[in-house]
Amino acid sequence: MPTYQGPVDDLQFVLHDVLNIADESIPGYDELDRDFTAAILGEAAKISSEVIAPLNTVGDQQGVTFENGVVRTPEGFREAFDQLREGGWTGLDCDPEYGGQGMPYILSVATGEMFSAANQAFMMYPGLTHGAYSAIHAHGSDAQKQKWLPKMVTCEWTGTMNLTEPHCGTDLGLMRTKAEPQEDGSYKISGQKIFISAGDHDMSENVVHLVLAKITGGPEGIKGVSLFIVPKIMVDDEGALGERNAVSVGKVEEKMGIHGNATCVMNYDGATGYLLGEAHKGMRAMFTMMNEARLGVGMQGLSQAVAAYQNAVIYAKDRLQGRDVTGVKNPDGPADPIIVHPDVRRMLMDQKAFIEGARAFGLWGGLLIDKARKSEDGEAEGLISLLTPVLKGFLTDEGYQATVQAQQVYGGHGYIEEWGMSQFTRDARITQIYEGANGVQALDLVGRKLAADGGKPAMALFQMIKDFCKEAAAQDEEIAKEFVEPLKTASKQLQEAAMYFMSSMKTPNNALAGSYDFMHMFGHVCLGFVWTKMALVAKAKIASGEGDTAFYQTKLTTGRYYMARRMPACAMHLQRITSGAETVMALDAEDF
Amino acid sequence: MPTYQGPVDDLQFVLHDVLNIADESIPGYDELDRDFTAAILGEAAKISSEVIAPLNTVGDQQGVTFENGVVRTPEGFREAFDQLREGGWTGLDCDPEYGGQGMPYILSVATGEMFSAANQAFMMYPGLTHGAYSAIHAHGSDAQKQKWLPKMVTCEWTGTMNLTEPHCGTDLGLMRTKAEPQEDGSYKISGQKIFISAGDHDMSENVVHLVLAKITGGPEGIKGVSLFIVPKIMVDDEGALGERNAVSVGKVEEKMGIHGNATCVMNYDGATGYLLGEAHKGMRAMFTMMNEARLGVGMQGLSQAVAAYQNAVIYAKDRLQGRDVTGVKNPDGPADPIIVHPDVRRMLMDQKAFIEGARAFGLWGGLLIDKARKSEDGEAEGLISLLTPVLKGFLTDEGYQATVQAQQVYGGHGYIEEWGMSQFTRDARITQIYEGANGVQALDLVGRKLAADGGKPAMALFQMIKDFCKEAAAQDEEIAKEFVEPLKTASKQLQEAAMYFMSSMKTPNNALAGSYDFMHMFGHVCLGFVWTKMALVAKAKIASGEGDTAFYQTKLTTGRYYMARRMPACAMHLQRITSGAETVMALDAEDF
Repeated sequence: MPTYQGPVDDLQFVLHDVLNIADESIPGYDELDRDFTAAILGEAAKISSEVIAPLNTVGDQQGVTFENGVVRTPEGFREAFDQLREGGWTGLDCDPEYGGQGMPYILSVATGEMFSAANQAFMMYPGLTHGAYSAIHAHGSDAQKQKWLPKMVTCEWTGTMNLTEPHCGTDLGLMRTKAEPQEDGSYKISGQKIFISAGDHDMSENVVHLVLAKITGGPEGIKGVSLFIVPKIMVDDEGALGERNAVSVGKVEEKMGIHGNATCVMNYDGATGYLLGEAHKGMRAMFTMMNEARLGVGMQGLSQAVAAYQNAVIYAKDRLQGRDVTGVKNPDGPADPIIVHPDVRRMLMDQKAFIEGARAFGLWGGLLIDKARKSEDGEAEGLISLLTPVLKGFLTDEGYQATVQAQQVYGGHGYIEEWGMSQFTRDARITQIYEGANGVQALDLVGRKLAADGGKPAMALFQMIKDFCKEAAAQDEEIAKEFVEPLKTASKQLQEAAMYFMSSMKTPNNALAGSYDFMHMFGHVCLGFVWTKMALVAKAKIASGEGDTAFYQTKLTTGRYYMARRMPACAMHLQRITSGAETVMALDAEDF
Repeated sequence: MPTYQGPVDDLQFVLHDVLNIADESIPGYDELDRDFTAAILGEAAKISSEVIAPLNTVGDQQGVTFENGVVRTPEGFREAFDQLREGGWTGLDCDPEYGGQGMPYILSVATGEMFSAANQAFMMYPGLTHGAYSAIHAHGSDAQKQKWLPKMVTCEWTGTMNLTEPHCGTDLGLMRTKAEPQEDGSYKISGQKIFISAGDHDMSENVVHLVLAKITGGPEGIKGVSLFIVPKIMVDDEGALGERNAVSVGKVEEKMGIHGNATCVMNYDGATGYLLGEAHKGMRAMFTMMNEARLGVGMQGLSQAVAAYQNAVIYAKDRLQGRDVTGVKNPDGPADPIIVHPDVRRMLMDQKAFIEGARAFGLWGGLLIDKARKSEDGEAEGLISLLTPVLKGFLTDEGYQATVQAQQVYGGHGYIEEWGMSQFTRDARITQIYEGANGVQALDLVGRKLAADGGKPAMALFQMIKDFCKEAAAQDEEIAKEFVEPLKTASKQLQEAAMYFMSSMKTPNNALAGSYDFMHMFGHVCLGFVWTKMALVAKAKIASGEGDTAFYQTKLTTGRYYMARRMPACAMHLQRITSGAETVMALDAEDF
């Protein structure tokens, strides 16, 4: 069975050595010194490896059951959930006014990586609750917040997000679920929602569904969509639970992975719902949580890569097969461990270099969200909005590939469920699909974010990277050659691609047909950027003799791998992009 | 539930328009005119779509059961297997002396693509039998051939290949299974074999296991390995079935995919076995079937891509979501079919361009095997040996990616097992692992095949492509620009990589660390080569007004996509390769 160890040292390195979070003047960050975060991360790592990770295979194998209208989670899930609740983890970054710990969001990103790596399907129960919490916190009336949030912060009540219907996912304007206004100000909700993660289960007293629906008589299409709070069990004004609401589970889906999470078809048959925020502004309400939710999914992609990678390393050191061509490494054994073989190393280095870069990128994203939210920093808001589709699309695509590579290290054993490597790929696969399929992320990036605010955030980022390159190159010759040069090249290629899109505005398909490659180029540039930052820090630490030199040396080497072996992908993406839309669009639909 | 249609027109195009098989002077090829192959392929397509494909989901969902020592296949498998037998499909290219149809191998490749696309797990039962048939046919005594082959040609008895043991897969020198010589010339086989596909089941009277084992007292390591015939049920000299042999199923593995195939742990407890070929020459005997077996797995990878692609196309035309940015395409519907969206097209074109190139590459491989085998053409033998690891590694890697992309077209529905898209990815995944994991293919290519026979086959291939480029460029200006140029560039890059390996012979890790990228470059060059050939043919047909112009136009367009959008990967691979082994090997094992 796979194991998992929380990468506390790596997280600490990024938080303190690279992002210097304690120096940030963001409200709440003054607390975040090295010892404090070490304590939090250490505790989260412990729960992850000891409590949550052991249930990962269990969840995959048992799945959830659905009998007589009741959804049951796998063995042990309830107890683990209780431990999570009792430790206050479900409300780590929630508002203290409703019982939360009030910690900065970046800490949730850091601990969340570990929790998700330990058990993605399990962590989706509190994860979805957090999403619903945020929506109510941002858009609810005081009375609504008082009524729903305290129990959601503790996960005594969990939450869900209901968007998709059988005939509409990306295009929510086609929505059919209706909301009929009632005399008491509530609504009767009727319709069917599908793919509802954590839709129902046996781990909480109540489930608070957030449901998108159209108020009868409202505008057509996406402009007529409103957001509603629809509890599974009615709650009176004193907060006591009453009768069942007219919402039920129609089915629990059989999925490729995340078997431990109940993906439900939810039927609303005139269920009582309460308008959240303004009527017909439901999509806007959903969008306010989007950066956070999408970064969260990006971190899930990374997290599966981390868990898979850790096990691949253990296997590669343990499995004896063949001999090192440059000289026997294990003369007392019948063969050398496969980690001696260059192609096994290639796979591990591809994973490792991605993972550590992605972690820094993800935590930077968390920092920007805190800046935007807590310091009301408009520049940070613009930047994180630009980076969000990249964080979601690139980290999940690459995260998935990393799990496939980790599985490949195991050879035939990787294909046998008993070894657990298949689960990482099957679970990671969903991250490329939900919360906006990655093609939709690419569209968001190129069709919306690149030109947002007159292109200011994009230009500011390019300028920032340019300035940083100059500064970094001046500091260290080796860094200049091994890191800054490939970063500069890639960044120029990225801008060239953006210019290509702008210059062919009359052929919007050129941009759309190149959007996916652009998203990946953008991801590589961001990882090249954070790797160069990390390399500078590592070199400075080595020079000063401060801390664990071997640790910093490994960072430097891993970064050099990324720059030498992953950044060249940018030139390929640029070539694909500038080949234009013509070959992509030339065929008639019937020619496929 | 997914459907499948055999691509008979595409196969005919490659066989006749591109490879001109009827003009080849290979024994047996004189029969292969257009009508004849159309009849065979048409019939195979019919069985594939009507009989075998409907069992694909059934097999995935039911899997095989193992109770009281008996392995049972999913519902309907037995009846379908009977139909395959009755149609003579199991012996299509087998020796008529033993009841086979005596057809050229290339026809097995063509029909095999369809059969595997319809149901990979199911087709592995006759597939493994064919492998065992070939081994006995090549290395058996006359008596052995008379005894075993007729029933294997008809699949009344099926076959298996037993190589892997728990502690050894790639490194078979570590093998522990023993063969104790008996006075009657037979051997007692003892040991455990794992990952035995089609190891046991309820669809045949007997199972003929081919087992690698070490004769006691023989040489150490790989040089002491011999090959044995070990029947499940003993067969007397008259061919009558007798008692059970001392071989039993220890376990049926739970796998990520190919659930319909029984992947068994086989226990040999002093089972009676018969030496096949020479003692201690077991590996050599296995190697004679290797080109065929590996091409077969490459075609499996392709086949899953084809099946997944066909369904993605259906879905993309059917699913209404969003509007074409260049103008509404389905004004009477609530939205346009998603095939209008450039990023959906990109996914479909990536798949289509790969699939059609890979099909031509695979059939070319089949032609070379026929040439090598039936015409005893040494050059063809050298070339197919060189191409085999590319056919296996590249087609399965890219085939797998194509299934993932096809799944992505479905959005959330792709993740739900009911839709069947997950199965294609889960089934395709094994093709990257078995019959030599793809990293081992890359090692074979760079470490053995590239330099084989003084590098003659490789140099001959490069020269052939160069000559072809010259010729093709002279024929047509458009082809020169759109096809020959990228092919020439990629071919030069491939040679540059090969030169880099040779120039750093003192650092063998440079070649090994670049082997995987080299295999992929090689694959792109081969697909670029066959695409250029196909484009030339298509243009000539269009010019002559012969045949279905729309069909040829689509070929041309699809080829242009491959050249413009896939060939640029070569430059990236070259850059990765020439960055050398240093960053790959720099870390100590404990730094991972």
